Amino acid sequence: MIPRYSRPDMVAIWSPATKFRIWFEIEAHACDALAELGVIPKEAARTIWDKGGKATFDIERIDQIEAETKHDVIAFLTHLAEIVGPEARFVHQGMTSSDVLDTCFNVQLVRAADLLLADLDALLAALKKRAFEHKDTITIGRSHGIHAEPTTFGVKLAQAYAEFSRCRERLVFARKEVATCAISGAVGTFANIDPRVEEHVADKMGLEPETVSTQVIPRDRHAMFFVVLGVIASSVERLAVEVRHLQRTEVLEAEEYFAPGQKGSSAMPHKRNPVLTENLTGLARMVRAYALPAMENVALWHERDISHSSVERMIGPDATVTLDFALARLTGVVDKLLVYPETMQKNLDRFRGLVHSQRVLLALTQAGVSREDAYRLVQRNAMKVWEQGKDFLEELLADAEVRAALSEDEIREKFDIGYHTKHVDTIFARVFGRD
Amino acid sequence: MIPRYSRPDMVAIWSPATKFRIWFEIEAHACDALAELGVIPKEAARTIWDKGGKATFDIERIDQIEAETKHDVIAFLTHLAEIVGPEARFVHQGMTSSDVLDTCFNVQLVRAADLLLADLDALLAALKKRAFEHKDTITIGRSHGIHAEPTTFGVKLAQAYAEFSRCRERLVFARKEVATCAISGAVGTFANIDPRVEEHVADKMGLEPETVSTQVIPRDRHAMFFVVLGVIASSVERLAVEVRHLQRTEVLEAEEYFAPGQKGSSAMPHKRNPVLTENLTGLARMVRAYALPAMENVALWHERDISHSSVERMIGPDATVTLDFALARLTGVVDKLLVYPETMQKNLDRFRGLVHSQRVLLALTQAGVSREDAYRLVQRNAMKVWEQGKDFLEELLADAEVRAALSEDEIREKFDIGYHTKHVDTIFARVFGRD
Amino acid sequence: MIPRYSRPDMVAIWSPATKFRIWFEIEAHACDALAELGVIPKEAARTIWDKGGKATFDIERIDQIEAETKHDVIAFLTHLAEIVGPEARFVHQGMTSSDVLDTCFNVQLVRAADLLLADLDALLAALKKRAFEHKDTITIGRSHGIHAEPTTFGVKLAQAYAEFSRCRERLVFARKEVATCAISGAVGTFANIDPRVEEHVADKMGLEPETVSTQVIPRDRHAMFFVVLGVIASSVERLAVEVRHLQRTEVLEAEEYFAPGQKGSSAMPHKRNPVLTENLTGLARMVRAYALPAMENVALWHERDISHSSVERMIGPDATVTLDFALARLTGVVDKLLVYPETMQKNLDRFRGLVHSQRVLLALTQAGVSREDAYRLVQRNAMKVWEQGKDFLEELLADAEVRAALSEDEIREKFDIGYHTKHVDTIFARVFGRD
Amino acid sequence: MIPRYSRPDMVAIWSPATKFRIWFEIEAHACDALAELGVIPKEAARTIWDKGGKATFDIERIDQIEAETKHDVIAFLTHLAEIVGPEARFVHQGMTSSDVLDTCFNVQLVRAADLLLADLDALLAALKKRAFEHKDTITIGRSHGIHAEPTTFGVKLAQAYAEFSRCRERLVFARKEVATCAISGAVGTFANIDPRVEEHVADKMGLEPETVSTQVIPRDRHAMFFVVLGVIASSVERLAVEVRHLQRTEVLEAEEYFAPGQKGSSAMPHKRNPVLTENLTGLARMVRAYALPAMENVALWHERDISHSSVERMIGPDATVTLDFALARLTGVVDKLLVYPETMQKNLDRFRGLVHSQRVLLALTQAGVSREDAYRLVQRNAMKVWEQGKDFLEELLADAEVRAALSEDEIREKFDIGYHTKHVDTIFARVFGRD
Repeated sequence: MIPRYSRPDMVAIWSPATKFRIWFEIEAHACDALAELGVIPKEAARTIWDKGGKATFDIERIDQIEAETKHDVIAFLTHLAEIVGPEARFVHQGMTSSDVLDTCFNVQLVRAADLLLADLDALLAALKKRAFEHKDTITIGRSHGIHAEPTTFGVKLAQAYAEFSRCRERLVFARKEVATCAISGAVGTFANIDPRVEEHVADKMGLEPETVSTQVIPRDRHAMFFVVLGVIASSVERLAVEVRHLQRTEVLEAEEYFAPGQKGSSAMPHKRNPVLTENLTGLARMVRAYALPAMENVALWHERDISHSSVERMIGPDATVTLDFALARLTGVVDKLLVYPETMQKNLDRFRGLVHSQRVLLALTQAGVSREDAYRLVQRNAMKVWEQGKDFLEELLADAEVRAALSEDEIREKFDIGYHTKHVDTIFARVFGRD
Repeated sequence: MIPRYSRPDMVAIWSPATKFRIWFEIEAHACDALAELGVIPKEAARTIWDKGGKATFDIERIDQIEAETKHDVIAFLTHLAEIVGPEARFVHQGMTSSDVLDTCFNVQLVRAADLLLADLDALLAALKKRAFEHKDTITIGRSHGIHAEPTTFGVKLAQAYAEFSRCRERLVFARKEVATCAISGAVGTFANIDPRVEEHVADKMGLEPETVSTQVIPRDRHAMFFVVLGVIASSVERLAVEVRHLQRTEVLEAEEYFAPGQKGSSAMPHKRNPVLTENLTGLARMVRAYALPAMENVALWHERDISHSSVERMIGPDATVTLDFALARLTGVVDKLLVYPETMQKNLDRFRGLVHSQRVLLALTQAGVSREDAYRLVQRNAMKVWEQGKDFLEELLADAEVRAALSEDEIREKFDIGYHTKHVDTIFARVFGRD
Repeated sequence: MIPRYSRPDMVAIWSPATKFRIWFEIEAHACDALAELGVIPKEAARTIWDKGGKATFDIERIDQIEAETKHDVIAFLTHLAEIVGPEARFVHQGMTSSDVLDTCFNVQLVRAADLLLADLDALLAALKKRAFEHKDTITIGRSHGIHAEPTTFGVKLAQAYAEFSRCRERLVFARKEVATCAISGAVGTFANIDPRVEEHVADKMGLEPETVSTQVIPRDRHAMFFVVLGVIASSVERLAVEVRHLQRTEVLEAEEYFAPGQKGSSAMPHKRNPVLTENLTGLARMVRAYALPAMENVALWHERDISHSSVERMIGPDATVTLDFALARLTGVVDKLLVYPETMQKNLDRFRGLVHSQRVLLALTQAGVSREDAYRLVQRNAMKVWEQGKDFLEELLADAEVRAALSEDEIREKFDIGYHTKHVDTIFARVFGRD
Repeated sequence: MIPRYSRPDMVAIWSPATKFRIWFEIEAHACDALAELGVIPKEAARTIWDKGGKATFDIERIDQIEAETKHDVIAFLTHLAEIVGPEARFVHQGMTSSDVLDTCFNVQLVRAADLLLADLDALLAALKKRAFEHKDTITIGRSHGIHAEPTTFGVKLAQAYAEFSRCRERLVFARKEVATCAISGAVGTFANIDPRVEEHVADKMGLEPETVSTQVIPRDRHAMFFVVLGVIASSVERLAVEVRHLQRTEVLEAEEYFAPGQKGSSAMPHKRNPVLTENLTGLARMVRAYALPAMENVALWHERDISHSSVERMIGPDATVTLDFALARLTGVVDKLLVYPETMQKNLDRFRGLVHSQRVLLALTQAGVSREDAYRLVQRNAMKVWEQGKDFLEELLADAEVRAALSEDEIREKFDIGYHTKHVDTIFARVFGRD
């Protein structure tokens, strides 16, 4: 996470101020439950909310105490006592540090997921808008980087929409994975705290009680969360790579928006480089990389070790902030993408009818020519186009063996572009529904 | 995937015989749909099923044709034509190779997922059995590898049960991700084949039609599948590491089953090494590693490139076969694990009451001692146990400052082990339900 | 490692036959040293060589014994005893299984490295040949996928040559890392075997004695080996991606060799797909992935655990066989690459002189125009070329502000392509030396 | 990179101030060379050094310009012009932004490598000191977490010393990989700048001219750099895991230094947790993870794309700062490690002589007992120790079949601990040399 690739709302989730506020809420809600159970005085719980609820925690002061005690939760509680006064002794009763830390981390991840879901919604909206705009914009489909058959630019974007819809479902699944709360004590037995405290805090913080925590919330949940971010980042990369390809000098079917006054290069002023999508390609590599230590974090020793902590201090912010930035950047790219239908058409026409070879092949077999022969016939005419720049239609019409199987009209009909777009409505209905 | 770490059912899914059988089914179901639509004669479709349905495909012959044509699907279709005769020309009409390859790959992954789900069920059953068996077996809970508070061995296993239940849900999710079918042609526009063919084949093969395929089924689906395997493998590692720790010479609270006649070491016959769980630790690393190229596969160029193919030829079998083997091995380990409750008790008693320090601390604060003072009182007595081998209870009873806050009975009551297990029923109910 | 992506020499290194032969050599050399030290009779050592040296080990028999004893080295030694007779009792004296296994693994890795070095030499030779062939073949250099300035195709290949020369150095370094031998006993103390045995075996097997082994050879060595393979694979990917880009329909400056009779696609016979380099892109992902578990293998517990073993049984063959195949395939691609200089020139001319903008910019500043003004002048003329298809040279000549700074001759001189290639000799001398 | 896991010297390398200073030096040295070649006036070069050399660059001002121009190098050059005045027009002549950026990045990596080398030296010194201190401290060697044979704690540390010595060599190798300079223009042809400028700048900045750069320095170099950091991190993890194991409650042979006043846990004051080495375990996962995007960065498109840049902005600081912190922390752990020889002895004696089983086995075979029989004899007595807590020596002495082969003295002699340590000098000489 570096400022260059950060947006403020996501950064704020990971600030010390947010963290201490969440810690306070966990502790204060726990006090309410403890008071309700008669473990601590109700007065005390009320005082804690009254004084702590409106307090601004002094982060420098907490850091100072931590430097001494080398323990972050104790540092916070000590500072809280400075604010709350003697009733502070009722705070954290029967709890262990991880009850606060792990529940807080999950609250942060859930909030991060909510921002990412909003990011995905914005991206989906942009994709949908542009998909419908270019629903009928003919372009060549490419496999292996080689011209295959026509499709439309709208279909390309509809595919991306479908892909990011899946990403959204995955993120909803992942969010649910980490939306749990643990207030279960030193090894998770609730020896010193009633399970009802956990239930209360979970409810108030928008979480579910963790099925079995063992001081810590099990890290398979977090692994799942971060691998989903990695998969989403991979889809970001896919669309970014598509734009980079389309912007290549020789292709130039689309371009990232180029702001007036923006300089592409200090040396080559004519250059308009797809720097945003190249940047996204790199950011995707980072988010993907964070999935690994998240998976290595799962195998903690016995009831817990703390090796996961340093990893999460880094990847918690790094992965969510980077993906948030990437999704927003990608949304901007899609939203403002300069699309050049004429170039798409020009590129499509490059091989003078060769894109229709598949149809001709099929027509020949349907006319009774064996698959092998049909292939040979199509191939020999295709090669003339490829090697000598001939026109595919004319060559076919002049090929006696082809004509023996197909009439001129039948051949000409195979070169109708509408043939390829006749199911675009079906595809759009699958992606966006019928309405 | 190597024989040593393979089980036959999963291996069979990836055999050439299975693959060609699935290819045949896809082609033959497509013929049915094409016949229904009037594109090919119904007779032809019937002949294809009749002759192909009972044929054993000659893998060597197919390989031989492929060596010549350098194209696997053409090789298969050529061989199929040798079996079916002239009606074979109606096979694969309007389809592209990937329609067959991708749909087949997904069928294989779905079948693999079904085996893995069965593996997880077996593991869950073993965990449940052993968890109830040891529901009340007292053992020390450890954080940082250091004794913390008592728990039960059953709770440890219940945690694992809860974790693998989550793994099961993830796998169900992942299975759904890849349960799709594409019969959509060269760039996914259905130009040469009616979408109803896809719908029919999907239905017959137990799949859903892919929302938008572009010759290929989008690889974010497969990325999701393989990262979930990676997360499951990480949970396998966690339980494996737990067993390895428990079997350490100094701990020895449990051991992998040691078959009579098994030799632990050529040199040290007394050794019983946790080789199965060490092996599982390594296998988990492998399954996790496969998640990476799966994510890198997502960003194919334009409508498709074939870079994913070599990756999937390897990780398809490697990841599923290895995880299948690992889950089965882990189930065996759990099922036959030798558990030593006496050693658990002995280890628990090692520090003469020190595990109860948290309770004493809490009692002191509840008796009105400030948190800081209570901590100091507990710590100074704890240190005598730690450093001089004193008995914690006796030291506390002899500490005037402690006794000023707590009576002898109150102190003694803090050393009751039942205090720690009182919520085990609650935990078990959360994990296994109340019945 | 699957047959499709395997070559026989590398596969042979990992065969059971090779493994048992190496095991035998290690044991027999150790016997020589033990005999020399007077620990066992010289007669015995001689008999072991005589009978074992010419024996073909019966792999099925060994497997059968292992199934019983569950220990591979004991199984081998038992079988060896069947061949050698009573003198077999002198074999393996004071040794531990890992002495044999780890030394054998390193012998295999060293042999694999030797094959890979030969692969790299072949690739370097092909690159050098083609680099000199195209030393003066003008082509456009591209940054961000966008035309930048001219270079030559030979320079592109020279860069690849330099990169793979570095890969070669890295592999030499990595080979040295794993070229060690351990015959040091159960925890590496040489308690039961004289260090001179290790020295003798190391010498005979072409290895160095391991500085400190602890039953096992430390796995940081192997991690280093496999990460180097990952880096080499990444360079394979780079060159593969370059070819894929050059073969794109719109670029088509080079193509993978297309064998007569080879079919690119069952449906589109005109297609020539860069399937070899796409395949290499996928294989690179695999080799890179294997680096991870290799690094995770380093942190074995205490003197050793066996978690590394399952990983190495897989990545040992998988990584080396795959990289061997990839390097050989890449060599073939380079060697037979179809290069189209006319298309290169045509693409270069696409923007009618715009590639010379940098020179004009420089000339303007050298003529006293401020950087900002020069940039503005170049940019305004460049935009006319870009947007209206004007000729850059003509526009510049017609721009009064430009002409105020530069004469017609001065401007024309900036469009000389030789300007860009004047240091190609220097670059080639750096890469290939001056001879 | 987060403050918690950062040290100032390494952080300073990545500060904007350092970066702009390096940029200035590259530009100013280039001016010197350009002046020497007569391209720009010598006066100008001198002025640039005079004014820029003592200037403090205004980072906010540069950020402000970059926000406008969206180009960092232009922003810097614009600010430099504000400082230097009209002579600034001679700066950056014929250069491209990457000439500055890439050379600067390599300077930063080289400086980072120098700090890391110093870190390794400090770690090696600490390891050496402690290794000699405990050269003869007997401890049990463990394989699979199970007692094997005795070794010394010094040998353990000597192993670590040897491992980190190898890490040092790797880092020297990696440092050399990235110690290159590129001043070669837009596609690396030196069209606009004489190669002698590159040579001069390289020399002044302590680098080698890059063999072939193509606007960018090829990223295989950086991949190699970061994978080496990943391997070093894995060795950090190994030693960290060793300490964590030794500090386990049941083992407790060593402990991280525990500062007076440090609190291990808010709830269990007796706990001394190995939090530093657990933390190192996590940090190692992070450094290892960064190796992946570094490898993915290699395959840039054509002469360059900028996808590597966002990755490097993150992993450049993150990997070096984290590893620097980790090495320093590990040095502190080693230096101050509390070692408990008595506990080591007590653990060693746990199985009443069983650690000598290997010697007895060997003695039996040397006395003419067959391997199979010897194994059986040792095993049956060992099992009595294991299962009934008998004394191994006594059991052997009482076993008639054993006594038939070995006398009482011969048996007793096998229980001499000195037998296991007799080659410690040899091992130390291998590691530390003979002096």
